[in-house]
Amino acid sequence: MADYRKMWEELGMDLESHDTLCAVLPVAFGDTYLSQENRPENMAFYDFVVSEIHGVRPSELIEHQKKGGKVLGTFCVYVPDEVAVAAGAVVTGLCGGSQFWVPGGEKVLPKNTCSLIKASVGARLDRTCPFFRIADMYIGETTCDGKKKAWEILAEDVPVHVMDLPQMKRPQDYTKWADEIRIFIGVVEKLTGGKVTAESLGAAIRLINNKRRALARVYECRKSEVIPISGKDGLLMTQIAFFDDPARCAEMANKLADELEKRIKDGVSVFPKGTKRILLTGTPLAIPNWKLHHLIETSGAAVVCEEMCTGTRYFEHLVDESQTTLDGQVDALAARYMKNNCACFTPNTGRIDDILRLAREYKADGVINTNLKFCGLYDTESRSVMRALKDAGIPALNIETDYTDTDAEQLRTRIQAFLELLG
Amino acid sequence: MADYRKMWEELGMDLESHDTLCAVLPVAFGDTYLSQENRPENMAFYDFVVSEIHGVRPSELIEHQKKGGKVLGTFCVYVPDEVAVAAGAVVTGLCGGSQFWVPGGEKVLPKNTCSLIKASVGARLDRTCPFFRIADMYIGETTCDGKKKAWEILAEDVPVHVMDLPQMKRPQDYTKWADEIRIFIGVVEKLTGGKVTAESLGAAIRLINNKRRALARVYECRKSEVIPISGKDGLLMTQIAFFDDPARCAEMANKLADELEKRIKDGVSVFPKGTKRILLTGTPLAIPNWKLHHLIETSGAAVVCEEMCTGTRYFEHLVDESQTTLDGQVDALAARYMKNNCACFTPNTGRIDDILRLAREYKADGVINTNLKFCGLYDTESRSVMRALKDAGIPALNIETDYTDTDAEQLRTRIQAFLELLG
Ligand code: SF4
Ligand code: SF4
Ligand code: SF4
Ligand code: SF4
Repeated sequence: MADYRKMWEELGMDLESHDTLCAVLPVAFGDTYLSQENRPENMAFYDFVVSEIHGVRPSELIEHQKKGGKVLGTFCVYVPDEVAVAAGAVVTGLCGGSQFWVPGGEKVLPKNTCSLIKASVGARLDRTCPFFRIADMYIGETTCDGKKKAWEILAEDVPVHVMDLPQMKRPQDYTKWADEIRIFIGVVEKLTGGKVTAESLGAAIRLINNKRRALARVYECRKSEVIPISGKDGLLMTQIAFFDDPARCAEMANKLADELEKRIKDGVSVFPKGTKRILLTGTPLAIPNWKLHHLIETSGAAVVCEEMCTGTRYFEHLVDESQTTLDGQVDALAARYMKNNCACFTPNTGRIDDILRLAREYKADGVINTNLKFCGLYDTESRSVMRALKDAGIPALNIETDYTDTDAEQLRTRIQAFLELLG
Repeated sequence: MADYRKMWEELGMDLESHDTLCAVLPVAFGDTYLSQENRPENMAFYDFVVSEIHGVRPSELIEHQKKGGKVLGTFCVYVPDEVAVAAGAVVTGLCGGSQFWVPGGEKVLPKNTCSLIKASVGARLDRTCPFFRIADMYIGETTCDGKKKAWEILAEDVPVHVMDLPQMKRPQDYTKWADEIRIFIGVVEKLTGGKVTAESLGAAIRLINNKRRALARVYECRKSEVIPISGKDGLLMTQIAFFDDPARCAEMANKLADELEKRIKDGVSVFPKGTKRILLTGTPLAIPNWKLHHLIETSGAAVVCEEMCTGTRYFEHLVDESQTTLDGQVDALAARYMKNNCACFTPNTGRIDDILRLAREYKADGVINTNLKFCGLYDTESRSVMRALKDAGIPALNIETDYTDTDAEQLRTRIQAFLELLG
């Protein structure tokens, strides 16, 4: 690993604590990822990104800032990257996926808060993640109770702009979200000094759509009977897409897709024939949360799809590229983003439709519904998800977990029992 | 108690289970309320209401329905009663305040849901509360995660209309709430067959304002050095106001206020001179949740005010009565209701201002901030509430509890230690 200590120091990071994180992450990654066999060659790029996760991309962001550019941090797939890109800003996902950051979050948040929020707040306040230090502004949203209140705490330490997400999906809610996007444009223009024009926004829409298309190509390969990539590797690509430059992200995903398509043609699978195919649905898996994928895939099954924000929701649905006015483009953005089916909406029957459709498309033998402890939204929705799967005759397992490893063996037992049930 | 079994049977209630509730409630009420000394004579009305809680008012509501009228059930002080009244409907609060209903809610909701939601859902699904059976339609709102998802479950069993509450308080959010109120008017008109006119809405605004004025008179008396009413009795009046006919509610509160004003003049207090005055702030105390008031007042202090939805938030701020057009009235309603400072908003600094102001106005010696377990919104906000009180030099105690009684003695110890601290 290159020496980034000076950069981290200049970012005001807690180097000592950060060293601890740097010491454990490669071990976890090695155990989880590098132990896999017959991985696609193009995963080398993603392995490299992880190995330098707090170095390479952060220094690119700092380069951008040195040239006068701004960096926005986001926490939800409802926040449209296109707007930031059109104003010349760079977006980086900021969701924390490691238990390492949780105790820091618990200093200011109730323990009964989901680990994703606790880790995100902890990563900022404990100064142990360069991305959280670099971002000039955080863009929040009113998706769930925990995040609504977390913005108030973060705003004491960093500029935060909150977008008020409608909580329902009636026609007028699309208009409301379009209005929020218009406000967001103003905020980004003010921050960057740039101007969002029909031209720049049009280009940004195409850029992000291309990224979506590339990610979709990889997922398309996961539908194949011949499974050319592990679920773990698929997840890793998606997780890194939240941090990477969108053009490079598309390029790398396309390269990976080329390889996977060839593998399918050649009948090259990373799993033995007859391996059970699992669709995972539920709360997002922020990097480096690989726990469930690892448990499932070391128990003899394959994760073929994630109906999650770190999964299909991140790339499904393109923004209409035919709009030529700013107003038309904003409406097109709202229309696309509102297609996302998050449990923060009431009702959210679209998610049930998605799960049933994806189970079919990805030929899932079973579905595992997972909930991050203390996420009341997804937890409550589990009931209707499990019921719909039962009604559809699709075997399903409901799992609640957090970022700790204490329940790993217990989960493994349950997962194995479920897989046996699949025959 | 009159015999209401036939009515309950016709409501499709689970009589056997309901009998259990009917057996315990009077005991709890006797222990908590009737044991108090020197109570205002006008509390007799409220005692009577409690003694016939599942009889008298339910039969009035059924009478109203027999004449073709409709009954709406609500769960939040953001839902404007005025609209329902203007269309000829009757509103009844439906928040569950008893542990009795919690297990029923836990059959369909995660245990990690606040007791208020679990009890409300349980009361409906277990068919053990006449009010939940009587209401023709429930009016929900998108205030918190738990409720957002609970509507979906309730909607499987009863018609539910959900109002999308904005999650912030910018000028445009007032407009959004006014728009939701307009939709609500349409829904109520459709349900009742009635018409909301400037005349009927104007009359309803005055009716509900009068109720607010009457409740405010009682609370005004609680500001006096001579404390003429216990916190428990003040709370009971407010709790019953959610269920009662608004004109009678105003009449009874005014009578009570007359008596309390005389008591103050005569120097009649229900507490010895020098009793410590407590402002309670936090999550609502739905009937029959008297736990904290009872613990505090049997530990030698007096609750002089509740900064809660079952407290000042229910009656503070009048709706502008000078509007003569429907549009103007709706905007006036939105303006009034948006003044409520619930933790479901981000940010919610207005609540801090309210707490500091009320502590001053009610001459509180200390503040107890209370959170209903698993309410993430108020739990997270506790941090800024406690900090603001500390900065203002006001002694404060933070308590988290639920509807069970298992923690009562532990809470008593903490409350007593806190009161000793007040000197
Ligand atoms: S799960 Fe919901 S709140 Fe979380 S990132 Fe996805 S859309 Fe946003
Ligand atoms: S997992 Fe649930 S509680 Fe956590 S941030 Fe996402 S929606 Fe909110
Ligand atoms: S606490 Fe908030 S959600 Fe609950 S009744 Fe009050 S305003 Fe409504
Ligand atoms: S107490 Fe909190 S969680 Fe419960 S209904 Fe009220 S706002 Fe929602």
